[in-house]
Amino acid sequence: MYLAKIHVNYKRSILNPEAQAVQTALLRLGYQDVASVKLGKYFELKLTNAQSKEQAAKEVDEICDRLLANVNMESYYYQLEELVVAE
Amino acid sequence: MYLAKIHVNYKRSILNPEAQAVQTALLRLGYQDVASVKLGKYFELKLTNAQSKEQAAKEVDEICDRLLANVNMESYYYQLEELVVAE
Repeated sequence: MYLAKIHVNYKRSILNPEAQAVQTALLRLGYQDVASVKLGKYFELKLTNAQSKEQAAKEVDEICDRLLANVNMESYYYQLEELVVAE
Repeated sequence: MYLAKIHVNYKRSILNPEAQAVQTALLRLGYQDVASVKLGKYFELKLTNAQSKEQAAKEVDEICDRLLANVNMESYYYQLEELVVAE
């Protein structure tokens, strides 16, 4: 079993209005020193069938490309952790 | 300068309909082995004034409690990285 920790963020070239709204709100709350705000989605998926890290990576790439990320506007990266199932 | 990497997730006791929708969609796409899906928000903030890690942590806690997280339904954790500014 593998745990996939997936970050999906807007590509640098894409304006993120939500992140801008957060930065504006922070300024209004008096936090003048927040130079930049990045905002993205974070997924954790438990994959029960993958027998190897390569197999888990292949599945996560597919899942990201087909569902979790809009590959036109977003990029993703992930870490894979092997989960030891207690016998 | 410090970079705060902040994860904001629903508390365990709170049902996350968006995460459920992702899991249902994955099942429909044929990924039967995705045992669980967790979905949250990920922020990166650059803090220019903090002079120490403790000061940066204090500011991030305040920012999370006041804006980034709904503390009734969400919990947050973060890592702080010191950024060396090129002279």
